[in-house]
Amino acid sequence: MVAAQPALQNLADRTPRQLRELIRTGQWRTPTAGLAPGYTQANVAIVPRALAYDFLLFCQRNPQPCPLLEVLDAGDGEPRELAPGADLRTDVPRYRVYRNGELSDETDTLSAYWRDDLVSFLLGCSFTFEHPLMAAGIRLKHWELGCNVPMYITNRPCKPAGCFQGPMVVSMRPIPQSQVVRTVQITSRFPAVHGAPVHVGDPAALGIDDLQKPDFGDSLPLEPDDVPVFWACGVTPQAVMMQTKPDIALTHAPGHMFITDRRESDLQAW
Amino acid sequence: MVAAQPALQNLADRTPRQLRELIRTGQWRTPTAGLAPGYTQANVAIVPRALAYDFLLFCQRNPQPCPLLEVLDAGDGEPRELAPGADLRTDVPRYRVYRNGELSDETDTLSAYWRDDLVSFLLGCSFTFEHPLMAAGIRLKHWELGCNVPMYITNRPCKPAGCFQGPMVVSMRPIPQSQVVRTVQITSRFPAVHGAPVHVGDPAALGIDDLQKPDFGDSLPLEPDDVPVFWACGVTPQAVMMQTKPDIALTHAPGHMFITDRRESDLQAW
Repeated sequence: MVAAQPALQNLADRTPRQLRELIRTGQWRTPTAGLAPGYTQANVAIVPRALAYDFLLFCQRNPQPCPLLEVLDAGDGEPRELAPGADLRTDVPRYRVYRNGELSDETDTLSAYWRDDLVSFLLGCSFTFEHPLMAAGIRLKHWELGCNVPMYITNRPCKPAGCFQGPMVVSMRPIPQSQVVRTVQITSRFPAVHGAPVHVGDPAALGIDDLQKPDFGDSLPLEPDDVPVFWACGVTPQAVMMQTKPDIALTHAPGHMFITDRRESDLQAW
Repeated sequence: MVAAQPALQNLADRTPRQLRELIRTGQWRTPTAGLAPGYTQANVAIVPRALAYDFLLFCQRNPQPCPLLEVLDAGDGEPRELAPGADLRTDVPRYRVYRNGELSDETDTLSAYWRDDLVSFLLGCSFTFEHPLMAAGIRLKHWELGCNVPMYITNRPCKPAGCFQGPMVVSMRPIPQSQVVRTVQITSRFPAVHGAPVHVGDPAALGIDDLQKPDFGDSLPLEPDDVPVFWACGVTPQAVMMQTKPDIALTHAPGHMFITDRRESDLQAW
């Protein structure tokens, strides 16, 4: 935690625009889970125009890990649909820079890396459905502990598209056994932010050996009555980029999402 | 009607594969509404690879008229996800060929037009949700009259993407006033085949002057108690192509859809 960062509970009444301002001015640099109740959070993936068709096709073929919310025109940093006036290059708490498939930098702004041929993709983030889960009385440990959700690279391959291929990444939340059905019901109504779990229970079914050693984020304790529940995760593009090795790819840092103006209720499926 | 064509009611037990065989061998050349109960029907739009990114982006930005079900690799005619073993170039009852934005041919097969750089898009068709409507006791006049559904070019612009821009096309079904709410509920559960209506009631709100003069398909009579209900339509890409004038674009003929192996229940949103 950055020393000067305001407490989560003091930000409940901030608008998405105010939260983005807080982020842009360096006052919030940690994961965004719990911020902006009622609004949609988004994963960010940015690739050169030469790779954008393959990546767009990859998202179309893998809607669970890569649910597209908005695709910007090349060179444009303003998500005109989801957050008019915002700037994707400054309004995310932490970014990752990949070069030739290697993580080469973590940074607070993308201005040093921007190019006119870069195409930005916004993908729905499961943080969005955490507010409806909490409203239904389903407690989320990473909120209570003030840490990130654990994420794992699985043994499930995504469907390839052009140069993009790789495994699905999942996020995991420990859910008390008695609340698993309600959790499936609630999250199923939000396909635009990953939707229903891809798996409930034994992590070995996804090729995960040790829940306490996530590939991204923080580990979480499981109570004896907890069941691990897994959702497709928007960090998947990062795992895919590592395999595909584009000359440059820019993303949010895992858990450090872009906060949009889109109400979660507008995304809800019927 | 082609003289030798079998009656719709005699085809209720045919599988999608058997129906595609019937179509491929020239035994079914009319609209596909009412065929393949329980299975998904799809619009077909085929453009050169050089235009595929813009078109894919257009679909992403306009999911109501252009709900993507599958995008094939360039040159590939087999929808490996939706209908393995089928061939998009022969398994549609009637095709349209557009050259420089003008309708230049209607044909039974695309073999004379095929090129290795053509990319095929399958978009959900509202014929799919007509079976659940009928199952709920909502009668569909175009089934009863054995004709096509009427389609209209509206005054609502789609969101542009690259070289693609143009108006939304809608289909219209007359629905008895007492069944409008149920019709909205049922179709809302199928966003992958256009989903909820875009408009209920006065056609002038969509810029439609005369319901009896559709731009595509056949006109339908409205009873005094009927309300016109409008859905975004997969013919929209054809209207868009006419404005954009690509050197070649291939589509199904309006109402003459591709029948997939995908069960409608697998598409249903929660």
